[in-house]
Amino acid sequence: MEIKIRKNVLDRNQNKANEVRKLLRAKQVLMVNIISSPGAGKTSLLERTLENLKGKFRIGVIEGDITTDRDAQRLKIHDVPIIVINTEGGCHLDSHSISKVLPEFDLDHLDVLFVENVGNLVCPSHFDLGETFKLAVVSTTEGDDKPIKYPMLFRESKAVLLNKIDLIEYTNFSKAAFNADMSKVNGNVPVFEVSCTRNIGMEKWYNWISEQIKYVIQNKL
Amino acid sequence: MEIKIRKNVLDRNQNKANEVRKLLRAKQVLMVNIISSPGAGKTSLLERTLENLKGKFRIGVIEGDITTDRDAQRLKIHDVPIIVINTEGGCHLDSHSISKVLPEFDLDHLDVLFVENVGNLVCPSHFDLGETFKLAVVSTTEGDDKPIKYPMLFRESKAVLLNKIDLIEYTNFSKAAFNADMSKVNGNVPVFEVSCTRNIGMEKWYNWISEQIKYVIQNKL
Repeated sequence: MEIKIRKNVLDRNQNKANEVRKLLRAKQVLMVNIISSPGAGKTSLLERTLENLKGKFRIGVIEGDITTDRDAQRLKIHDVPIIVINTEGGCHLDSHSISKVLPEFDLDHLDVLFVENVGNLVCPSHFDLGETFKLAVVSTTEGDDKPIKYPMLFRESKAVLLNKIDLIEYTNFSKAAFNADMSKVNGNVPVFEVSCTRNIGMEKWYNWISEQIKYVIQNKL
Repeated sequence: MEIKIRKNVLDRNQNKANEVRKLLRAKQVLMVNIISSPGAGKTSLLERTLENLKGKFRIGVIEGDITTDRDAQRLKIHDVPIIVINTEGGCHLDSHSISKVLPEFDLDHLDVLFVENVGNLVCPSHFDLGETFKLAVVSTTEGDDKPIKYPMLFRESKAVLLNKIDLIEYTNFSKAAFNADMSKVNGNVPVFEVSCTRNIGMEKWYNWISEQIKYVIQNKL
């Protein structure tokens, strides 16, 4: 019985996600669903990325948080539209909450919408938000075994950011082990080795995400 | 309707948790439900703790993992009974899965059962396993804002381990900010500053957990 209930919830989420995806496609807006453990660096990534891209593209942000607006406060200085969704205990965003806040953005004049999901390597992977693609963020300090232990996110993501690369020397993180597991789980995605805090390796990420945005908006007025 | 279904699941979980708690109390076994983000150091904590306590107490371990038995493999050399529960995608352990594996331990000759939950700061906090208490593990590399952003776990825990204290100098973690948030969320719990990997600050933790175990088993044969 439980499985059936879960299926209903997922079905309803999927239907709404399909609507969101259709709308965003019509408006030629790229939506990135950013997923990681708590504290892996999603907000730091957004800080750097907004700084770099905001002169080139029209950006919006949805901040998913259980409670508080702390992450949104950190991004405020970049002067892009930000909506906070507090899940009030919920462990992931869903397509209904995204659908509800979309009208608050001027989608006709937006190129990319970054969604920072709740910090959680498990549940957000199960809920399609209508995004163009998922982005996995993982940090060296979490250990090299995350792709094999939490495979769903890494299997579903279009790219992986390996953050806190500056701290790797203080950990027992093995790049060889990480890459071996990644290639078992999903061998076809780029892995960007970066430090958002120390601004290392970010150019390749900026170039890649810019290409993704351009691909979506290429025929937009 | 969704809320009702969720309530049923939680009710059934609570009933079974009460049974587990009653059984463990009768057998005078302390059960610790260890919860953290992925990669915060639950397994490293167990490696050190088993090493230190296994001559003094009779220990069992339940390893909760979505898939794989990697954590159990790391603990194997300590030669204590370990049961792995694979949740197959599930984001937390529940009392039913604990109840099912308990008969595999010799509870009459056990003092403490450490349960390593699935790496997740959110969902495991909602599910009582029948444990004596919850233990929160959080690492400096995750940032100092975890207690305020994920308050439920910190509110429900009897102690907090602040791990990776050796890496604090490479991060922007502020102890003052962390402690200020902790005292808002739950001012009454001890916070142990440790590095499980580099074996820093562990004595205070060993002493504290030993006291907890002794308190439960004091009249046991």
